[in-house]
Parts: sequence; structure tokens; C-alpha cells
Amino acid sequence: MTSYTAPLADIRFVLNSLAGLADITALPGFEDASPDLTDSILEEAAKIAAGTIAPLNRVGDLEGAHLKDGKVSLPEGWRQAWDVLVEGGWNGLAFPAEFGGMGLPNLLNVAVQEMWHSANMAFALCPMLTQGTVNAIAGYGSDDQKATYLPKLVSGEWTGTMNLTEPAAGSDLAAIRTRAVPAEDGSFRLFGQKIFITYGDHEMAENIVHLVLARLPDAPPGVKGISLFIVPKFLVGADGALGARNDVACASLEHKLGIHASPTAVMAFGENQGAVGTLVGQANRGLEYMFAMMNHARQSVGLQGLSIAERAYQQALTYARERIQGRPVGWNGEDRTGIVNHPDVRRTLMDMKCRIEAMRGLIYKAAAAVDIAHHHPDATRRAEAQLLADLLTPLVKGWSTEIGNFVASAGVQVHGGMGFIEETGAAQHFRDARITTIYEGTTAIQANDLVLRKTLRDGGAAIDGLLADIAATADRLTAHDAALAARLGAATQAAKGSVRCLVGLPQREAAAVAVPFLELMGTLVGGQMMAEQLIAAQAAPSDRFLAAKSVTARFYGEHVLTRIDGLAQLIQAGAGLVMALDEDLL
Amino acid sequence: MTSYTAPLADIRFVLNSLAGLADITALPGFEDASPDLTDSILEEAAKIAAGTIAPLNRVGDLEGAHLKDGKVSLPEGWRQAWDVLVEGGWNGLAFPAEFGGMGLPNLLNVAVQEMWHSANMAFALCPMLTQGTVNAIAGYGSDDQKATYLPKLVSGEWTGTMNLTEPAAGSDLAAIRTRAVPAEDGSFRLFGQKIFITYGDHEMAENIVHLVLARLPDAPPGVKGISLFIVPKFLVGADGALGARNDVACASLEHKLGIHASPTAVMAFGENQGAVGTLVGQANRGLEYMFAMMNHARQSVGLQGLSIAERAYQQALTYARERIQGRPVGWNGEDRTGIVNHPDVRRTLMDMKCRIEAMRGLIYKAAAAVDIAHHHPDATRRAEAQLLADLLTPLVKGWSTEIGNFVASAGVQVHGGMGFIEETGAAQHFRDARITTIYEGTTAIQANDLVLRKTLRDGGAAIDGLLADIAATADRLTAHDAALAARLGAATQAAKGSVRCLVGLPQREAAAVAVPFLELMGTLVGGQMMAEQLIAAQAAPSDRFLAAKSVTARFYGEHVLTRIDGLAQLIQAGAGLVMALDEDLL
Repeated sequence: MTSYTAPLADIRFVLNSLAGLADITALPGFEDASPDLTDSILEEAAKIAAGTIAPLNRVGDLEGAHLKDGKVSLPEGWRQAWDVLVEGGWNGLAFPAEFGGMGLPNLLNVAVQEMWHSANMAFALCPMLTQGTVNAIAGYGSDDQKATYLPKLVSGEWTGTMNLTEPAAGSDLAAIRTRAVPAEDGSFRLFGQKIFITYGDHEMAENIVHLVLARLPDAPPGVKGISLFIVPKFLVGADGALGARNDVACASLEHKLGIHASPTAVMAFGENQGAVGTLVGQANRGLEYMFAMMNHARQSVGLQGLSIAERAYQQALTYARERIQGRPVGWNGEDRTGIVNHPDVRRTLMDMKCRIEAMRGLIYKAAAAVDIAHHHPDATRRAEAQLLADLLTPLVKGWSTEIGNFVASAGVQVHGGMGFIEETGAAQHFRDARITTIYEGTTAIQANDLVLRKTLRDGGAAIDGLLADIAATADRLTAHDAALAARLGAATQAAKGSVRCLVGLPQREAAAVAVPFLELMGTLVGGQMMAEQLIAAQAAPSDRFLAAKSVTARFYGEHVLTRIDGLAQLIQAGAGLVMALDEDLL
Repeated sequence: MTSYTAPLADIRFVLNSLAGLADITALPGFEDASPDLTDSILEEAAKIAAGTIAPLNRVGDLEGAHLKDGKVSLPEGWRQAWDVLVEGGWNGLAFPAEFGGMGLPNLLNVAVQEMWHSANMAFALCPMLTQGTVNAIAGYGSDDQKATYLPKLVSGEWTGTMNLTEPAAGSDLAAIRTRAVPAEDGSFRLFGQKIFITYGDHEMAENIVHLVLARLPDAPPGVKGISLFIVPKFLVGADGALGARNDVACASLEHKLGIHASPTAVMAFGENQGAVGTLVGQANRGLEYMFAMMNHARQSVGLQGLSIAERAYQQALTYARERIQGRPVGWNGEDRTGIVNHPDVRRTLMDMKCRIEAMRGLIYKAAAAVDIAHHHPDATRRAEAQLLADLLTPLVKGWSTEIGNFVASAGVQVHGGMGFIEETGAAQHFRDARITTIYEGTTAIQANDLVLRKTLRDGGAAIDGLLADIAATADRLTAHDAALAARLGAATQAAKGSVRCLVGLPQREAAAVAVPFLELMGTLVGGQMMAEQLIAAQAAPSDRFLAAKSVTARFYGEHVLTRIDGLAQLIQAGAGLVMALDEDLL
């Protein structure tokens, strides 16, 4: 059993010094977001995360979710914790007041969600999916749909799901076969099976609002024939009252490596007369709507990478301080000291810590870009911010989740033999983390997005802009730390070389080194984030927290940024060989 | 449910072309090891691994080991499989004929054990521990102890365990507190608790022979006061018949992340009148005896890294061939093709494959060195081989297990969402692999061994010899593949720079970058192994298997060897910063 304490000092530092919270709250629409309010929200969220949600993490892993007699039960205490979020209005933090939300910045919401995910990733998936459902309906739903569903989803009285995947349609959504048949009243009847549906069924909320991708009878084949539907678990009357049970049921739950308490459902639509649904937006544009929401969903999963890393780090650090074992090499201190003073344990902890702080920088910066893209009065600034958010999203998702796995594994290692024993809890983070590089698009899909859509398509123009920004950071850094500045500058040059190499390759070869390029770019932008934090920290060098930040930034430079040369060499050399072997010789 | 097929083509290639099986079988003592015999042993082992042991892997994971009413039960089928090994004499493959063994080379045994571990890691731990027990008694036991215990352990009718760890004594064996009190008849009574005892109790064999580290009453403190004892589960009479139950009991079993069917026991010695034991060798030299056996135990765990990687690779490859999903980028082939033709899936599979073949080269080469060190008629050659085995052991254990984890995780990733579902089986390999970087000395302990004992102590002399050998391989490679030769040569130079840097550092700083140095050296020696395989393969370039070997070797050069520069930069720059932060600022 391990505890969680929200890292408020670092969260505040990154919000203020790097992500520009003050600039964000000054945007039109955020007039209520005073420093006092944002600060008390962070404080209160930290209390709920530590006191209410985190203590359920282990019981969630042990009990898991179960389907019995057609009902999905969640672990003891789950519902009470959800009620706390509903009563506090936490689900509506970043949604407009017209639907009952608080109208606060996405950036602030990301900081709060970081705490939820650190406290209990299996639990936090429920608000995450519900917020995604709100985004879809708010963005593309009719006024009627908005009025019917949004207030209850924003409050969290109802929860939401995304129904994309089918047995033969995973990453390849073009293969979707679920059918939607028009009914005489303008609604539709859906028939088909969806798999991997997170929080597909449970009893924690009065109703569940399913967003479902399906094909109309006259739809063209492939991705241009997919429409988006709302299918509620209980039908909703014109007066808003809940009516009959809809023809949608949880057929089974998956037995998973991790996030045991998050019910991952096989959902059966239309086993009887057909599941009643309504069309969202226009027919055959469902995939387009889903992709428009991808930034949010992918940034959320990237955030899980950060969150699970933070949790694993806290647990490993606590263990390393408490576990006494031998005299560290060359140690001059007290005889009985924790393994935290063994050189390799310390190296591992520093490696975890610097990556966590780099991830936090990247993710919060991307979250701020989303606020600017939506709220800035100047259209040019909005477009620039959207471009940046689009470019950073595959890094947020792809890189942070890989690092989340890396850090969770390091957390097990710090525990030695105890890390392999389930009671310790370190192994749960390792298991939970493993899904993050897979769902909402695997790392390879993020890398293809970065390389094929966002680098090759414009000949590298957008990414050159990002690299120029990093080069500018390196220039500013020179006055503060010439060695780190030189390392960041050289890494930026290596990245430029990789971009030039990529844009000259056929698509197939570029895709073959897309994941190494994503790792390179994530590592580089992480380096920029640490450089920016070092510069900000040196404004008050006598502060111990800020002095530590400078050491951590330098450590990142020496232990993480140093990987970039090798990745650049790989990209330069290795694209051609990937497909060189006849398949039967693998 | 997944199958396993022993990769006999690659095993034979590495045995013959790299590890020099013909030279090993020509050594004195291996007169019976004809090519026909060794080959039929490989064929038969492959059948048992695939047909008998591998089918129990999933049931082992699901059922696990259980303690009830003082008895430890293993999964259905476990005992029958063990009987197959006993009846075939498989446990005695590499042991002398005088104790009932076959007297065959360690190298051949390693190839067989690779198949056992791939088939079922939790199962294969039992023969592994039993063989370790044989080595200890054969090396340091009295004639009486040998006569009493070895025939039954060599046959596998009895199994063996190593009892080192206690709650406060993990990596730090100096802290051992188990007591051994002399009895009037010359035997001892042991009192204490041991934890993490693999196959500490079960009903698969008639008797279990525990090797136990404990302190005599007059023992000096620390590592120089630890003695080694034999404590059988059932006392053995002078006639060899089993007598009374000894005062040793399984107090509980751990709930672990993986290897569920391997019973990891808390063992209670002397809860009543004291557990009867006999001293092995001289008093207070127990740790020395244990360390003398470390090469075998650590090479065996390194082998598990290879084995689990091979199993994960086979499963991922099968899935990638069968799973149809979308049209690969730039694909000109048939419409319905497996994801094996998606560029990143192919890159991942190649990355797994090339590391597996590099590991097999390293591990088999180290195994051959052990045979030479024990059997070569020339003392100088024996000493050289022992030096090489000592130098390679931390790489075999430290690097191969890290790579085993990396490959098992990649195997999950290839499966996408299915990889996270336990039924698929990919997740079990990922969970099972996780222990290998921890037990028998964590990666950090291997790295300290490599850096502090085997690099700093002789000023880098031994490792310079290894680097000269790699440079010679690079020279010979030039005629076959100049580009790979240049890459291997440059990597060797970078490693030399790292060695020079390390020998100039204080111990504490050298230990702080020991794990990156181990990764560097493992990667480099892996490169040498692939280079040697490429050279050997080019002897018959028209053979498709051998042609594939050349591609795989080049892939290793471009995708794996390229990491070395960054590791060398890290070692050059990063040792000082590891301990720079005050501990409370972590």
C-alpha cells in the first residue's frame, strides 16, 4: 500500500514559469480564473487525489471490475469517490458555464487530471472518457443533443464512452462493420459489436452515453462511410427523464494485464430490436469528428504517462529512503543509510525525476497551446497555437507513454526483489502503464502521424519552425549554462539532419524509422523544456527547489539528451534495411 | 495459448560457427560427445520443450503454486513433465559420469536449458536451481556429502535450492542472521528465516536439498563469518534411505508479478528443535563458495533473458503474420496482408530478432569459455578462458536480462490492444521477464562487478584485452562489410574512451555510471557477435538462412550499435552529477 502526494511545487512551477498560466487566464472567457481560485483548485484537487482517490488504487487492482447477471460492479469505494467528483463539479472544470461547467482553462484541468491519473489510473479513465464525450457532443452535436446530454455529462451524473474498435477494426477503422439503420422517427437502430470499450458499463452513474461509429446502409466503403451516433444506455425522454433500457449490453469484460478496475467491455448493440441512436452532425463524417477530438484524447493518454511515472517515482523514492542495505560505494556518511545513497539507485531516481519534469513541461505546454488555439482573440495566434498543439500531440502521447513505461519499470528495479512482489504495489504501476503506449493509437501510429502527416506533407516546414524555437532556447540558455546550451544546440542540429533525411525518403522508408524519430523529437523537446525550466529557475538561485531544478536540467542533458546522436545516426542509416529481409526469413 | 518451436537452425549455427562446439567436444573428458550424439540431443530436447514443457506455460501462469496444509502444490501436469526430465537423464547432461551424469559440455547443456526456459521459465527454474546445488556440493562438499546427495540431485529425483536472502539481507549478504549451532554428533542445528527461496518446497521430488548460508556462534561479523550448510527436507540415513522430516518448513509463498508457478517460498528453519544440517567445506567460507558458483547461476539467468526474448519473438511474429489490419504504407503487394508488412511492426520484429541472435552469440561464447576453463589441457588457455568467462558473466546476466525485458515488451506492443489481454499470452512473457534483471544480483550489481572488480581493479587491463579482440573482429570484417566494420571499429574506440574515463574516476563516480557502461559493453560485444556471425555466414552466401544472418547483422549495426556513442558521451559527462542533489530534494 503506497500513498500519493501531489507534487504541487513542481506543478505550480511548470504552470507559471513554463506554460504561462497567467497569460492563459488573461484570455477572453477566463475572467473568473483569478490566481486565488486556480490556486485553491490545485490545493483542493491535491487533497481529493491523496485522500479519496489514491487509497482506492490497490483495492481496484485486487478486486477489479466484474460482470454478473448483466451488471458490472466496480470495487468497494469506487462510487463514493465518483460522487465526490460529481458533487465538487470537478468534471466540468474546463467546460463552458452554459452547460454547468466552471469555464476554466484546459491547462488547469490538465494539472487536476494529472493528479487523478497519478492517484488511480483505472479510476481516472472514467472522467477522461466522459470529458471526451462532452467534447464530441459540444463540438458536433445538435442543440437538442447538447441540451439533452451535456448538463448531465458535465456534472458527471452520466458518464460517456467511445465505441470505435471492433474485432477486425483496431488501428484500421476503415474496417468498421457496425450498422446503423434509419428509423421512421429520424432516429437510427444500431447493430454490431464493439470491443475494448473503456467504462462500457457500470452502475456508478444513472446513465451512460455511448458515442458509436457505425455505417449507414448507403454509406460508401472505407473511412468515408462512417457516421457517429449517440446511443444512451437508458433512453432519455423529451423532459429529460430516463426511460427504457436501450438495446445495448455489456457482453463480457476483458481480463487485462493492468487497470483491472477499469471495465473494458465487449458491447453488444442491437441483439434484439436494435439500439436506438441519434446521428451526430452529418452522415459519413464520423471519423472526421473523432479525429478532431483526437488531440484531447491523445494528450490525456500522454498525461497518463506522466502521472504513472510520478506515482512510480514517489513510491521508489520512499522505498529507497527506508530500505537499509549495505554500505554504499565510497560513502562517507552514517553507517545506516538508505539505498538512496547507493550510486546506481540515485542515478535511477535522477533519471526518473528529470524525465518526469521534462514530460510535465511538454504536456503543460501543449495544454496551454490548446487554450490559446481556442481562446486567443488574434486569429494568427490561434492558428499558430493550433499548429503547435498538432505538432506536439504525437510527442505528448507517443513519447510520454514510452517514458511512463520506462519510469514504472525503473520503479520496480529500485525495489529489488520486493518490486516483483505484488503486495509492494510497484508492479501495479508497471502493469497499469503498459496500456498507455497502445490505446488511443499505438506509438507507431503517433510516429506515423508525426512523420507522414506533420513532417513529410509540408516538407518539414512546421517541424523546422519547432526546431528554430528550440535553437532559440539554446541561444538564451548560453548565458545560464553554456555546456547544456551547446548540447541542446548540437541535438537540435542532429534533429535537423534527421528531418532533411526523412523528407528525402519514400513514405515506406520514412515510416520504418518513424518511431526512432518520435523518440528523438520527444527527447529533444524534453530537453528544451528542461532548458526553459533552468532559465526560469535561475531567476531565484538561492531557493533550494529552484537550485535543484538546475541540477535536474543538467542531469537530463548529460543522461538523456546524449541519446539523440545515436537516434540521428539510426535514422540516417537504417530506413532501408527494415524491410530488407524476405518475410519468411523472420 | 501459444506454441514454441526451438530455433534449432540458429542454435546449431551459433554452436558451430561462433561457440566452436567441435573444439569443445574435442577437449579431454568429452570423448563421448560425437556430432551424432550432440545433434540427437538437440533434436530430442526440442521435442520435449515444444511437446511437454511449453504447453504447461499458460496453465502454470493461471494456476500458480499454492501452499495448503503445509504442502506446496504445483499446477496440473507439472510433475509428469518433471518425470520426463528425470527419466531422460536430462538434469545430468553436463555432470560427470561418476555421479550418474552424461559428462557432456556445459555449452551443450546451455543450448538445452535455453529451450527449457523458452518453453516455460517458471518450470525451468527447478532444474536450474538443482544444477546449481549439484555444482556447490560437487565443488565443496565432502566425499560423504557427495555420495549422499549427488546421485539423486543429478538424476533429478531430488531437487535443490539456494537459501541466501533474508528480510534484512538482500543484496547485502553481510547482514545474514540465520544461526547454526554445533550438535554433539558433528552436525548443526539451524535457526532462522530465509525469503525468496525458489522451489523452496513442492511435492514433485522425493526430497529437497537446501543449501543454506548461516552464522556459527563464534563467527566474525560481516561477510567473513558466513558458512554454508546442507539442510535436507527429509533426513537421509547412512543407507541412503529417507528418514524423518527435518525442522524446515515453507511458511508462505509470495504473490508475484510473474513466474506464478515457480514457488517462491519463505522458509522457516528451526521453528522447533532446529533444522539438522551439515557444514559444506570449511567454516566461515560460505560466501566464497557461493561466489564461486555465481558464474553458473548468473549465466543461467542471463540465458533466461535470451529464452524469454525468443519466446516473445515467436509469439509476436505469429501474430504479426496472422493479423490483417489496414494497408501498409507504400505497400505494393496483396491487399490482405498481415501487419508484419507494416514498416514499424517489421522494424520492431527485426530489432527483436537481431538482439536475440546477438544474445545467443554472447551467451554461448561465455558457456564455451567455461568448458575451456575447466577442461583444456593447457593451464594458460584455461586461465585465459576463465578470465573471459569472468569478464563476460556480468554482460551475460546484466545485458541479456535487460534486453529480455525490452524484447518481451516489444512483443506486447506488436499485439496492440490484444497484447494487454491476458488470454493472448504476450503479457505473461512481459511479466515473467521482469524478475530476470533482479534476482541473482540486480543489473546494478552486475555493473558494479564489471566496473569496480573487473575494470578498475586491474586498471582496465582485462577489458582492454576484450576490446582488442573486438577490434580484431572489426578488422577481419572489413573485407566482408566495410560499413559495419567501420561502425564496430568506431564503437570499440568509444568504449576504449569510456574505459579510460572510468579508470580515472573515484569508485563512487565510476559506480554512478556503471549501468550505462554495462549497457555499452553489452551492446558492443553483441555487435562483435553479429559481426562474427556475418563473417561465418558469408562462407555460403547462397544459403537463404545465412544470407538472412548478414542482413540481421547489418540491422544490428544500424539500429543497435548506433546507441554506443550516446552512452560513451553519458559516461564521459555524467558521473559527477548523479550525486549532486541533496537527498531531500529528490
